[in-house]
Amino acid sequence: MTIPSDRQPTLAFLGPEGTFAHAALLTLPIAQTAVLLPMPNVTVAIDAVRDGRADGTLVPLENSVEGAVPATLDELSGGEQLRIAEETYLPVIFDLLVRPGTKLKDIRTVATHPHAEAQTRRWLMANLPGVGVALVGSTAGGAKAVAENRFDAAIAPPVAAGIYGLKSLEADIADNHAAVTRFVLLARPDAPGIPTGNDRTSLVAYLREDHSGALLEILSEFASRGVNLTRIESRPTKERIGVYCFSIDCEGHIADERVGDALAALRRICADVRFLGSYPRRDGQMDVVVSGRSNQDFHQSRNWLAELRASGRG
Amino acid sequence: MTIPSDRQPTLAFLGPEGTFAHAALLTLPIAQTAVLLPMPNVTVAIDAVRDGRADGTLVPLENSVEGAVPATLDELSGGEQLRIAEETYLPVIFDLLVRPGTKLKDIRTVATHPHAEAQTRRWLMANLPGVGVALVGSTAGGAKAVAENRFDAAIAPPVAAGIYGLKSLEADIADNHAAVTRFVLLARPDAPGIPTGNDRTSLVAYLREDHSGALLEILSEFASRGVNLTRIESRPTKERIGVYCFSIDCEGHIADERVGDALAALRRICADVRFLGSYPRRDGQMDVVVSGRSNQDFHQSRNWLAELRASGRG
Amino acid sequence: MTIPSDRQPTLAFLGPEGTFAHAALLTLPIAQTAVLLPMPNVTVAIDAVRDGRADGTLVPLENSVEGAVPATLDELSGGEQLRIAEETYLPVIFDLLVRPGTKLKDIRTVATHPHAEAQTRRWLMANLPGVGVALVGSTAGGAKAVAENRFDAAIAPPVAAGIYGLKSLEADIADNHAAVTRFVLLARPDAPGIPTGNDRTSLVAYLREDHSGALLEILSEFASRGVNLTRIESRPTKERIGVYCFSIDCEGHIADERVGDALAALRRICADVRFLGSYPRRDGQMDVVVSGRSNQDFHQSRNWLAELRASGRG
Amino acid sequence: MTIPSDRQPTLAFLGPEGTFAHAALLTLPIAQTAVLLPMPNVTVAIDAVRDGRADGTLVPLENSVEGAVPATLDELSGGEQLRIAEETYLPVIFDLLVRPGTKLKDIRTVATHPHAEAQTRRWLMANLPGVGVALVGSTAGGAKAVAENRFDAAIAPPVAAGIYGLKSLEADIADNHAAVTRFVLLARPDAPGIPTGNDRTSLVAYLREDHSGALLEILSEFASRGVNLTRIESRPTKERIGVYCFSIDCEGHIADERVGDALAALRRICADVRFLGSYPRRDGQMDVVVSGRSNQDFHQSRNWLAELRASGRG
Repeated sequence: MTIPSDRQPTLAFLGPEGTFAHAALLTLPIAQTAVLLPMPNVTVAIDAVRDGRADGTLVPLENSVEGAVPATLDELSGGEQLRIAEETYLPVIFDLLVRPGTKLKDIRTVATHPHAEAQTRRWLMANLPGVGVALVGSTAGGAKAVAENRFDAAIAPPVAAGIYGLKSLEADIADNHAAVTRFVLLARPDAPGIPTGNDRTSLVAYLREDHSGALLEILSEFASRGVNLTRIESRPTKERIGVYCFSIDCEGHIADERVGDALAALRRICADVRFLGSYPRRDGQMDVVVSGRSNQDFHQSRNWLAELRASGRG
Repeated sequence: MTIPSDRQPTLAFLGPEGTFAHAALLTLPIAQTAVLLPMPNVTVAIDAVRDGRADGTLVPLENSVEGAVPATLDELSGGEQLRIAEETYLPVIFDLLVRPGTKLKDIRTVATHPHAEAQTRRWLMANLPGVGVALVGSTAGGAKAVAENRFDAAIAPPVAAGIYGLKSLEADIADNHAAVTRFVLLARPDAPGIPTGNDRTSLVAYLREDHSGALLEILSEFASRGVNLTRIESRPTKERIGVYCFSIDCEGHIADERVGDALAALRRICADVRFLGSYPRRDGQMDVVVSGRSNQDFHQSRNWLAELRASGRG
Repeated sequence: MTIPSDRQPTLAFLGPEGTFAHAALLTLPIAQTAVLLPMPNVTVAIDAVRDGRADGTLVPLENSVEGAVPATLDELSGGEQLRIAEETYLPVIFDLLVRPGTKLKDIRTVATHPHAEAQTRRWLMANLPGVGVALVGSTAGGAKAVAENRFDAAIAPPVAAGIYGLKSLEADIADNHAAVTRFVLLARPDAPGIPTGNDRTSLVAYLREDHSGALLEILSEFASRGVNLTRIESRPTKERIGVYCFSIDCEGHIADERVGDALAALRRICADVRFLGSYPRRDGQMDVVVSGRSNQDFHQSRNWLAELRASGRG
Repeated sequence: MTIPSDRQPTLAFLGPEGTFAHAALLTLPIAQTAVLLPMPNVTVAIDAVRDGRADGTLVPLENSVEGAVPATLDELSGGEQLRIAEETYLPVIFDLLVRPGTKLKDIRTVATHPHAEAQTRRWLMANLPGVGVALVGSTAGGAKAVAENRFDAAIAPPVAAGIYGLKSLEADIADNHAAVTRFVLLARPDAPGIPTGNDRTSLVAYLREDHSGALLEILSEFASRGVNLTRIESRPTKERIGVYCFSIDCEGHIADERVGDALAALRRICADVRFLGSYPRRDGQMDVVVSGRSNQDFHQSRNWLAELRASGRG
């Protein structure tokens, strides 16, 4: 994100305060000096970036339990082009929050976000059988509604207890512990940053036609250049079941020769390719460049070819 | 599904009556003579099959707009093995349902299922800006709540209007028209049915290790046997972001030589392969068997090999 | 071949006059105004090009019956770099030539070149059983020796009869009729000519190490760019059985983007690549450029990548 | 080779005594008790096996300097099916043999086989410039002719000196030292022997049509089953330049599951596949079976598939 030095950046997030998105946003250095703008859902938050009300927005892209977040993928593959400027990871911990004094046997209603409900469903069936679960727009919104006395309990991140004056009756109740969510900071398109040597590149590849070998071709273009994929999702084209585009993350930076060359190859064999950004990798893994695919290898082979074309010697 | 002739089958579905799942279930011949059992969510419906209370359950697997349904994929890839016995397709149409007499300007609250909210979000922002949207467990549940006067309007399939005494104020309000949902009838494992010549096979492939070439290897095993994939989704392993299994649909029946041979090859190169069933294809597309991959080709090559091994001549 | 306009080119060939190489040379326009220099064997003819005594030499590269000509391939893959400037094809017809008056029953000795002997061996066993076959350095040399009364018959091209005053006792005696030899005109390295739209490119790829997937990788680099191979021969490295380089002909010209890009990719994954020239294709087949691999496709994808790297938009 | 115990085997070889083929034959245990039958050329020796006059014949298949021996490959790919029963390797050493008393300056004529001439050509040009080289049917034949006073010197294996009463004037004169020839013992088709755990399998794959992806497909079938190729040669089909079959050696035995499975796959995608035998590997390299491709892996996956087809569980 390029922000003129004479003004503060404005960053939208899925509010209210106390959501996972809020907690994730606070891990970014840029958030320390930014105006933070809570938004009711991801679509509105992204619209704020597109229409200029915000400089960026942090949205969840994938979760180690639930997988990709369809709404985010769809905003990235459709509508006006966006850019991923940063990524950050946040452990997902759900607590059962209640007003002080409430006991487990007192609980008749629970409020939470649909994703949180899905990730605690078996705990709920075992510990609160028969209790009514109300789905609300965010986990923090559920906590707020409990504070307002509209429900008995909320499933929400622990941080929401402090914000809304609740207490944690049961800690870490997710059916699968150790879940992690990956968030990305979306901004308007801009020149990619400088490669750090350990980057990630995101893109969407749209198929030229519904031919079954297309995915194999796409993967081969990356593999032959030694570019590892770190995520690939097929996404429906919104037209017909069975016709897909692919949402892809790979190792490396678009300024890296092997990555740029792979993207250019995709551009030739796909109906369209949308570049979503190159940004520092934050998952603790390191890129590996295999023999013959370094920037130097590409430069040498390009010079060799130019020499051959000019003189026949190389 | 093998049901003894002396009793009715019992089929669970995501209730209450009037949901898309209910409408889809009614398209299956087996539903005409079955006991239909409404369930509050997909997890409970599937549990009813696993523990024997139901013989089968119809659940959504993918949607042409939203993509795969994570909860269904996770129940298929984890827990006790299930079998897909049938597939069926249903167009998705959302109407804005109200109590008779309600006008658009009267609406202050709307109830609907999160997926329906996601698919009508832009319509809502344009036509009912500032109106509160309550997320509930099913679209039919939202319609029921409107009939009970708890909300002003529901976003639900048109059929729910008749069931709950509502009227359709606005028809077909989805942001993308022509959406279709694919449902699958899940049952306990059983011998696959007879090939019809136009079948589909579903499976889950678990990677042996996190090596980047794994997906390319998996696709190559299908491609080399002329077996087209009709869906492939990476799914998180619930352990670590970036480690996946793959949920796959392909053309053909496990009794077809090319399909069985591809599955056996996957079994050798993957950590595990879970077979989810072979069943008649209902999307109106036809399987194509390319030259050299027919059952006869496989039989001839197997006999040729046996003859070579025995006599050295072939 | 770039010959200053003020002097005649000098072209070496496997002599003496009347060989197939001589006949093939006469099919080239450049031979009409050239000094033709007969040489005793291919090695000497190629040496004459390398040391400047000749501007070019026409040598056989492959034969539709015998396959590749090892001596030619070895001179192309080893020693100082050479360039293929032209290709030409010549039907191979062997006659049994004798001095006038000689009858089949009179023949006790036959002289011919080893390749001609190999291609007429079954005819000889059937028609001249027990007759001694002397191997000589060229078919024309055999005809000359018959004229000098040193042997009774020669197996040679029909044209040699006229040159050496012999007559054809049996016509077209090759075991396989319709054989064709492909000759190439070798010159010193020089800038490749202008693409004609139907060209061929020759090269040698040396493996980086003895890894079994190397050939598959090499073929994939051509296939992914839609470049068809028209010949590929593994050649021993002269060091160890089982260690190879590959002698390759492909469709297209090094100035074609898809061909240049494939060569540059080979340069990165191989120990070395030797370019042997791009020249007009003369076998009557037409190059086919598949979708997404035209020069325009490459230019567009390169511009798109440059734009992405600069501005993030494309 | 299956020889009844009551009679001696008869083995043909490219004679006369003293050829490389003779020396190689003597390295085989079976030759110790066999009748050895010298033949004038490879075609006649192979005919003797086909028509039953010999039980087997040892012929050269490839040479580390010259590459494949076309005549042998053609007899294996055409005509009646043969079987490779054994392989053996022989270092190739050429000496310059003369009658006792002859000095280098006395030599006016040299006799040798065309292959030996090709492999000593640069030595001859440097050391005996201007001397006439006569091509004869075998190196031993050249030595015999020198003994008979018909030529001044022969280029032949050192062993020929003793046999024909000559002496070695210059030792090891090949342009490339350390050349090795691989010989194979050909027999009539018979059941393959027992796998030793370190075997080689030979075959010829005929293309279904002249499609450029065919070689890539063939290689992929081996690679996906973890079967390394140790030799692959394209051979002309004797019909048209550019139309090929492939002569292939791979690791492993036809009784090995991965090898049998690869051959059966080739049988389906090729116009024809000719099996040439599985026999113990003698080049000092060891077969490597990669993970997931052992016999046990194949047995387990086959049983798993059978169980799935029968019960749907696996």
